[in-house]
Order: sequence, then structure tokens, then C-alpha cells
Amino acid sequence: MADRLLVIGGDAGGMAAAAHARRQRDDLEIVALEMGLWTSYSACGIPYLVGGSVASLDDLVTRTPQEHRDTSRIDVRTQHECKAIDLDARRVEVRDHEHERTYHLGFDLLHVATGATPIRPPLPGIDSDLVHGVQTLTDAAHLLEHAKSASVSQVAVVGGSYIGLELAEAFRRRGCRVTVIERGDEVMPSLDADIGSLVGGAMQEMGIDLRCGCAVTAFVPPRAGHGSGQVLTSSGDAVAADLVVLGMGVGPNSALVGDAGVTLGAAGAIRVNRRQQTSDGGVYAAGDCCTSTHRVSGREVYMALGTVANKQGRVAGINLGGGYATFPGVVGTAAVKVCSLEVARTGLNVAEAEAAGFEVLTSFVESTSKADYLPDPPPMAVKLVVERGTGRVLGGQIVGREGAAKRIDVIAVAATAGLNASDLVNLDLAYAPPFGTTWDPVQIAARRALPGSLKVDGA
Amino acid sequence: MADRLLVIGGDAGGMAAAAHARRQRDDLEIVALEMGLWTSYSACGIPYLVGGSVASLDDLVTRTPQEHRDTSRIDVRTQHECKAIDLDARRVEVRDHEHERTYHLGFDLLHVATGATPIRPPLPGIDSDLVHGVQTLTDAAHLLEHAKSASVSQVAVVGGSYIGLELAEAFRRRGCRVTVIERGDEVMPSLDADIGSLVGGAMQEMGIDLRCGCAVTAFVPPRAGHGSGQVLTSSGDAVAADLVVLGMGVGPNSALVGDAGVTLGAAGAIRVNRRQQTSDGGVYAAGDCCTSTHRVSGREVYMALGTVANKQGRVAGINLGGGYATFPGVVGTAAVKVCSLEVARTGLNVAEAEAAGFEVLTSFVESTSKADYLPDPPPMAVKLVVERGTGRVLGGQIVGREGAAKRIDVIAVAATAGLNASDLVNLDLAYAPPFGTTWDPVQIAARRALPGSLKVDGA
Repeated sequence: MADRLLVIGGDAGGMAAAAHARRQRDDLEIVALEMGLWTSYSACGIPYLVGGSVASLDDLVTRTPQEHRDTSRIDVRTQHECKAIDLDARRVEVRDHEHERTYHLGFDLLHVATGATPIRPPLPGIDSDLVHGVQTLTDAAHLLEHAKSASVSQVAVVGGSYIGLELAEAFRRRGCRVTVIERGDEVMPSLDADIGSLVGGAMQEMGIDLRCGCAVTAFVPPRAGHGSGQVLTSSGDAVAADLVVLGMGVGPNSALVGDAGVTLGAAGAIRVNRRQQTSDGGVYAAGDCCTSTHRVSGREVYMALGTVANKQGRVAGINLGGGYATFPGVVGTAAVKVCSLEVARTGLNVAEAEAAGFEVLTSFVESTSKADYLPDPPPMAVKLVVERGTGRVLGGQIVGREGAAKRIDVIAVAATAGLNASDLVNLDLAYAPPFGTTWDPVQIAARRALPGSLKVDGA
Repeated sequence: MADRLLVIGGDAGGMAAAAHARRQRDDLEIVALEMGLWTSYSACGIPYLVGGSVASLDDLVTRTPQEHRDTSRIDVRTQHECKAIDLDARRVEVRDHEHERTYHLGFDLLHVATGATPIRPPLPGIDSDLVHGVQTLTDAAHLLEHAKSASVSQVAVVGGSYIGLELAEAFRRRGCRVTVIERGDEVMPSLDADIGSLVGGAMQEMGIDLRCGCAVTAFVPPRAGHGSGQVLTSSGDAVAADLVVLGMGVGPNSALVGDAGVTLGAAGAIRVNRRQQTSDGGVYAAGDCCTSTHRVSGREVYMALGTVANKQGRVAGINLGGGYATFPGVVGTAAVKVCSLEVARTGLNVAEAEAAGFEVLTSFVESTSKADYLPDPPPMAVKLVVERGTGRVLGGQIVGREGAAKRIDVIAVAATAGLNASDLVNLDLAYAPPFGTTWDPVQIAARRALPGSLKVDGA
């Protein structure tokens, strides 16, 4: 009998692995269990669906279950939930929600891609119908229904995560009154405060009511049939809301595999090695349920992003199929469009760098992403974080208008390759007036971050 | 008496050096000779001036002679031409065109930034008033005058250089009939033909008459007072033209310093070491008049670009001022907007790589620079050139719509850092739906370029 690869989870981390395993091994039996109705979809696209620029939920699906069956001979079972894993017996317990039955399924190889769940703080009212997390297409369908409903005109977003801010904008574009409640001093705690404050400014310009330094204390659902709900805060405010979106980040769905005895790591996510292998050599994991190595700090981190899930899934699949591939880790790159601004970050911010033991120098530059003599040159600001002494590039943050965000990639590659500020200054980057300034803003920031005396190698 | 630094040439390569030398040494006497009226200007902006998106010639000037005098105490002398250099006597002969006088000036340190001149093939009629090169702001002033004149309605551009194509578009935007005559099979010989053909297509869509594989044999000026001139070609055509723009590239202005005994190198440009020092230890050079090292091929090359001139000027200035800085070289990055397309290249194209002795693999990917489920995702194509066996990134080319060109920087940094295709696949690049696809197109190209068997590390 052929070996059976069982995949738990039908989004990127699962299905990329399944497809790559198939390319390696034609003889493998591959079964994929997915709790929801969809496979291989872009959760990152949900705000654009809610905002109206994506016409249909199906547009967010890259590959349907049937396409996976047809092109890769994967036995995809939707509405199938894995309830328990028995590593000794090499089998799982499966609940088929469609046919309301439970059965057991053996495996030779197991791949876990159970994803993540929005963080739900244990506050009064958190489990009411008022409060929505955003993670799956099922969540997306619910949100879209509410967005289109005339009864939703006031929305509160709790937390300043990327998808939270994108949804704040999406509901604002639909004409709703939107309030964002953030516990920290600025939105987007993954940015340094000087950069984060620029993002907050753009949100306020768009008419979003931003309340920073303010924690939620309770959710009050509307009285049956009429009126709005409320979000109560530590400042004593009662923010009216017909809908609450949780934007406090996500936590890994790792309990199932943790309960089975597999080792967990950072943030309680499944610990994997470079081949995406867990502490059980026949069990692999990828995506939002597992850890990564941070290539700048060298630490184990939890980084729930679609880009990472796809890469980890590919590596896991190649290895599951008998090939050899490794995932060296992340450098913490992320980008988001918030109202009029493009925002991106990579590497370590100042607090992260200091926590990792680096002493840092920073530089901050305001420039433009087109030649400044062209009409309306889009502004962009770059912050660079380098190690004191060596000048090693540790990270960077960019905020700007069109063409700004993807500039972060230069810093991401530099941080990956171990380049220093002087190397950045001398990089041969692309220039033409519609694309930038002769000295790229990233390189101006690098000049200002050069370590050592100005008399030796001044900027 | 203070040491005197004499700078020949008032654009980027000269004035960046002068300003950096001043920052290093307060006591230096700095004299800068400039043949024209302007200093520190963006020649790259000339097509945008001619096309009408830049209002005034002065907008292209980053720093005027007076600003250099005021902020850096540089004795800038415009309309002053250096006629001869006597290295033994450490003095130059200067012609002051404004006051029609000639004088001698001694120096302790000499910095040569004499720039480049558009290539003028020795053809009948080349020296007529019909034919214009584009290099200086004086050229720009002439072109602008013609562009605004009612008598110019037909323009011929000879050669497919970047600035030639930009000017073709600029005159087309002004409503002129424009013909581009290119000897090669495709415009932009610095691109592989498969990419170059996409650029040609975009030009034709904009109504530019593109004639490739066709050499100019003569220029026929208009008869005095009326009618158009003509460009005669090897195909027997006579292309009517009220104005001819030379777009065949540039050659270094190195004769002055070559005649003085300084060693010349690639393309007859001034040979410099990493500190921008020439064969005469007290003479430095920077910008379009001198050579660079290509960091991928390891060869001496001639690369006349503003980005390079600025970096070389900075390095020369720090060294001239007694500091220490080095310019490690270029990787051949260049970008241009041509009609609806953004075009960029870096590293070695296939022909260049083979000439350098590399055996190459290439991959070609058509993707988008936004998520494909968003409205009108801009198409982009990526070609990647890697070394066979090692997978080392040798170069890449990108053609696309908005947001495409600056993606080349990832390949430029990768080629600089010696990364291979597998490293590219695992880079942590920025993603959000408005900025790209989950797998960046550069990374998709890298996956397809992975060396070795699919069974080992398949894409």
C-alpha cells in the first residue's frame, strides 16, 4: 500500500505542502482535511472584499478543493475537522461536520497547518454576536454580510494589527463611522513610535476616530431588536458600535498537536527545524501554527504571515516528498496600506534590537519616491536601525505614499545578507526621475547612520 | 598657503566631491571650473522638462553656483573651460569665455569630473543644426525652445538609449510625430531581446514609429527657410524630421586628462582605483568621465549614470579631503519609464554574462505588481539570469506597469551580496495586496531558475 500523507489545514501552509509533496512523489496518497469550505485563499484580501474593491469572495480563492483534486490528486475533505492526534498509533480522529460522523484515519506522514485564531481577550461580552475576529473566509462572509447591511453604521476596531487597520479603512470607505481603540501609545506596535504616529495621523485625516493609550474593559451587545452595542474603555468612554472587529493579532492553533506530545516553542507555536520538521520526525508543520527563526536576532519567533506560510509550506512539502529543502527563517518583513499611506517594516525595531542585546544607532530621513522636481512628488520617510560599531543593518521602517512600501525590500535583503550601512550607501539601486531620487532615500538614511567619525568616512 | 583643490566640472561628479572635501577639510581652498552656466543639475530630468511636466529649467538645478559658494565656500567659476593640464607643473590653462581671457591656475590636488558627450557618428550632415545631442542644460534649453516652436512637428530619435526613448515619448506627448531609428533588432540593447521587444511594443502603442534593424546613413538639413529635414537610412527610407535627437549613448570626456598623461581604461574613460584615484596619485576623477568596476563580472566597465557619479563624487571628495572611503563598483543597475512601461535591469544580461565566461540559466515570469484579485492588477514580467550549477544571481530584467521598476533593487542587492537563486526564494520580502503577490514575482522567477534536479529542491 502507498504511504499516506495526511495534511491538516487547507490554506497556504497546508496545500502548498501537499502540492509540493505530490511533485516529489507520484505514488503518495495525500489526504487534506479542512474545517471550512475553502482551500488556498488569501486572508489578506478580506479587507478589500469588505471595502468593495474585490467583487466576490470566490475571487480570493487561489485554488479550489476540486482544482487540488484535479491537478495534484489530493483527496481534499472540506468541513472535516481533526479532533485528536494519536502519534503512537499514527492515526487521527476526524469529525465530518457535513455528514455528522466521526471516523479514524491512519497516516505515515503528518503535516500540520492548522493556522491561527484571532486573540480574544477574556472580557465581559467577548463572546457576543457583536464581536468578530477576522481570519478565515467564513469570517469574511460574515463581515461582508454585515458591511452590506443598513443596520451597521458604526464600527469599532479593537487593537492596531495590520488587518484591523485595513478593516477600519474598509468600513470607513463604506461610509461607516469607525473608531479604533489601541492600548499602546501609537497604532502598529511593530513600528517605532515616531513612525507609528505618522500612520495614526493618516487614519485621522480619513476621519477615523483613533483612541490610543486606551484599553477595552467590556463589550455590551445591543438590546434585542434595536439600538447599537457599546465598547467600554479604561478611559471611561462608551464607544457605540453595531459591529466590533478584533485586531489584536493572532495566536497559533497548536493545542491539538501539543496535546499529542509535539514540542511547542515561541508564543506556544509548534517548534520546527529548518526542514519544517517537528519534534516528531514524521510530523511536519508550516504556516501560522508554527515558529520561525529570526535571521537577524537569531531567536525563535512567531510570525503569522501569508508569505511565510507559503514558503514554509513549500519547504515542508519538498521534504515530505523525500526531497531536501530548508527554510532559513524570516527577517520580520511586513507591509500594509493604511488610508493614504504605504507602511513597511523589516528586521528589528529599536525595542526588539535592544531586547536582542544590540546597541543601536538610528537615522531618519524624509524624502520622496519620485524626483522632487516632478509634479506632486510622493513623500516618504525612512528609518534605519544599525548596530553601533559594526554598522550592521538590523532593520528599517518606511512610511510614504505610492511606491514607498516595497523599498523596504532593499533593507530586508541587506539585513539577510549581513550588509552594513556602508555597503548600503554603495549599492547600485535603480533610479529614474519617475521612480525616485538620485540618492535613494534608503541610501540617504544609510549615509546618516554611518558609524565612526565624520572625518574618516563622513556622509 | 592653504592647499588648493581644483575641480574640473560642475555637475554631480565634481560638486559632490567638492562639497565632501570641504566637510573633511575646512582649510582647503577649493576652485571649481564649469564650462556652462549651471552646477549640480539633473540631466535625467531633461526629458521631463521637454515633455512639459517640469515647469522650468531651473527646477532641475539642485544647487546653484552661488549656493555652492555660500554653503561650502567653493570658488565656482562658470563659463570657465579647462584647456590643458600640466601635471609636471601642477597647473592648468583656463579659458574664461565670459571675459574672453585665458589664464593659468596651479593646484595641489586635482579632481576631474568632465562628464561625457553624446556619441556623434561621422555621417554626412551630423554637424548640421538639425541634429541635437542631449547631455547638458544648455542642450536642454535648445531642445525646449524647439519643442515649444510651432515649426517642430516631426522628430526623429536616432538610437535606443534611455534618454533617447524618454525624449521620443516627451515629443510624442507634445503632439509631434516621432520616429525612432535603432540599428539593433530591438530598442534598448542593454536588455535581452525578449524583454526589449515588450518595450518596443509599448512605444508603438503610443503612436511612435519604431524602425529597428535600420542604420542611419545621412542627415539632410532643411532647405533654408522652409520644409523639413530628412534622416536617410540603410533601408532606403527618408524619414522627415524638423529635429533629430541623438540617442546612441555617450562617450567619456577624457582627452584632456589623457593628453596630460593619465592612464585611460574601458571605453577610453579615465581609469580609477577604489578611492577614485587616477594613475597620478594627486589626481582623482568621478562621474561620466571615468571607469567603474563591475561587481558581478569583476571587469572594468564604463557606466555613465547619475547615481554612479554621485557616489563616486562623494568617495573622491572624502579622499581628497584626507579621509578614507572606497567605491566598490557597480552592478549595472538602470531604470527608465518608456511610455506606459517601467523598465529596469541589473547585473549581466545573457550576452554580457556569456562574454564574462559564465554559463547561465534564465527564467521568465509574467505576474502582477498587485494582488491579481484587485481591480486592474498591473502586469509585470521578470527575467532572471543565474549561473549554471551554483545558481548565483548574475542579473535580471523587469518590465511592467506601476510599481515594477524598483523591484529590480532586490536582484541588484542579491547580485551584490553574491546570493543564489535558492537564497532569493527564501528572502522575506514585503507583501500586502496593494503591493504585490504573496510570492513576489522576483521569487517566482528564482524558483523557476533553481539549479539541480526537481527531485532535490524543486520549485
